[in-house]
Amino acid sequence: MIIKGRQYRTVWMEDGAIKAIDQSQLPEKFEIVTINDHYDVAKAIGDMVIRGAPAIGAMGVYGLALAVSRMDRRDMNEIDNIKQLLEEARPTAYDLSYGLEYLADRLQQTETLEEMKAEALTAAEAYADRSVEDCKKIGTFGNALIKDGDRILTHCNAGALATVDYGTALAVIRTAHYDRKSIFVYVDETRPRLQGSKITAWELHQEGIPHTIIADNAAGHFMQRGDIDIVITGADRIAANGDAANKIGTYEKAVLAKENGIPFYIAAPFSTIDFNCPSGDNIPIEHREAAEILVIDGKRVASPGSGAENPAFDVTPARYIRGIITEKGIIKPEDLEGFGDRQA
Amino acid sequence: MIIKGRQYRTVWMEDGAIKAIDQSQLPEKFEIVTINDHYDVAKAIGDMVIRGAPAIGAMGVYGLALAVSRMDRRDMNEIDNIKQLLEEARPTAYDLSYGLEYLADRLQQTETLEEMKAEALTAAEAYADRSVEDCKKIGTFGNALIKDGDRILTHCNAGALATVDYGTALAVIRTAHYDRKSIFVYVDETRPRLQGSKITAWELHQEGIPHTIIADNAAGHFMQRGDIDIVITGADRIAANGDAANKIGTYEKAVLAKENGIPFYIAAPFSTIDFNCPSGDNIPIEHREAAEILVIDGKRVASPGSGAENPAFDVTPARYIRGIITEKGIIKPEDLEGFGDRQA
Repeated sequence: MIIKGRQYRTVWMEDGAIKAIDQSQLPEKFEIVTINDHYDVAKAIGDMVIRGAPAIGAMGVYGLALAVSRMDRRDMNEIDNIKQLLEEARPTAYDLSYGLEYLADRLQQTETLEEMKAEALTAAEAYADRSVEDCKKIGTFGNALIKDGDRILTHCNAGALATVDYGTALAVIRTAHYDRKSIFVYVDETRPRLQGSKITAWELHQEGIPHTIIADNAAGHFMQRGDIDIVITGADRIAANGDAANKIGTYEKAVLAKENGIPFYIAAPFSTIDFNCPSGDNIPIEHREAAEILVIDGKRVASPGSGAENPAFDVTPARYIRGIITEKGIIKPEDLEGFGDRQA
Repeated sequence: MIIKGRQYRTVWMEDGAIKAIDQSQLPEKFEIVTINDHYDVAKAIGDMVIRGAPAIGAMGVYGLALAVSRMDRRDMNEIDNIKQLLEEARPTAYDLSYGLEYLADRLQQTETLEEMKAEALTAAEAYADRSVEDCKKIGTFGNALIKDGDRILTHCNAGALATVDYGTALAVIRTAHYDRKSIFVYVDETRPRLQGSKITAWELHQEGIPHTIIADNAAGHFMQRGDIDIVITGADRIAANGDAANKIGTYEKAVLAKENGIPFYIAAPFSTIDFNCPSGDNIPIEHREAAEILVIDGKRVASPGSGAENPAFDVTPARYIRGIITEKGIIKPEDLEGFGDRQA
């Protein structure tokens, strides 16, 4: 993505450290953080300095590669420990497990310590590059769904910042815009953390794509009024049966889309699909701290005597999903399992 | 309602002025505002110092009564002008029109200026008293729907502060609690203005009723998980066919309730039912300023380059509403029209 005239990725390696755009500061401050070890990688993921399933996946891969690049003996148990530490940073996003598994496999195939250290860095770069290419393909496949004049609803941020670059749901929107289709984007603000109003709106503004922010509560109203033609969101983990976990509220918008006859699509790379997870019931849902609901930008907004419950994700059953826009094409949720066989 | 050991109504008349709890300051500050003329009544309604359809209705009635009590000649045109000014303060809540119509009718029946001035104040007090009685009846009728152990979802604030006292949806919850039923309330925070987390939670905490605040986005998730037994909200205007306008997001929760087999009820007095309005399509929907979405408690939260659309209400079609809990009993939306005949 282009920010202030310079090309950026969300996360990358530079001078033996990991660099990332600090998303917890956006849109007020655009800052690059430097992360020096895998403990700080886990912390950056947990604190949502970096967020979005594919971005978390790449950050995890870089974190493991960084740790391996500094090893002084070839200790596969230690690699397992680091993998586990990173995997536990956030439980719902599958790309994290997928990426770490990918890198561990590549490391297994090496024989010497030096070979392993070199492979860690090469494979991590290849993972990030591949992730960007996959997002571009998602954009191309998804663009076929967008008609000139379409008004698109999206939830949370499935943009360049949720991936290494380009985005998933926003890859589709970007590609349609580059293709000179006239589109308009309704951006759910996405409480509690407001990633829609803070990050998605910021990305769309950078690209000059026409959009408006709405309260999450208003999405149904605009659907009911006939103001929305298609809904596209990202996903954090997709089960083998096509059930998809994504940011809390996605399930609501999917049900409302179905009720109003509006197609609902998930855009996500194969790294988000957990073929070992039979259905949405098996996806772990992260519960985050009540303060995300009760306090906004450091100020308590809620009544002082009350607490909050804060599930960070929900599961949209496959029956609400018209298709999953992947780097291999648009797949109906019920057809996913076949791809799992081919994958394995 | 009891606040700091003293009995309060939301709005009342005292020493020739109108007093009201300033809801725009809650829960941080509990302050009583004094309103000295009908221009300030219109402003207090528009600025949401007072909010909630039945409370707005009573405030409007007091505003007109105050103006009449200071008239020096019996000028029915002037009364019409004041009525119109007050009615335009907020377009969606029907109780405002209903209350003003009630008072104007009573004034018409007087003959002298002195008689009219006296009647204005007497009739306004009677309106407020009747409103409280109606809310208590709503609580009693609604309580029959609540089972011991029920987990109730509510949206926005339909509490004592949305009425003169006691509430509508919260009247049901209060009555069930006084009846020693063990209940638990899920409170939608209700963006953009957070009336759930600021006001409903505050009222529930005052009464010691167990509750938790959730993001509006999470309501569907809790329904899907089987954590919610019944949904009850208030309404701002109910059309003759049973379609109900209420705070933005109500339609979303109603659709989700239906999808999950959970009964969805509206609690509202007859003063909210507009028998001259054939369906929800005819209800005017107020659009409020974008700043309510983009700025929270004085701080801009959204990306600086972006705007927002902010419909304050939505319409829940009658087919999603199991029943309307009124002071005359629980009425199926399709049976409303019959009551309109009897009303007229």
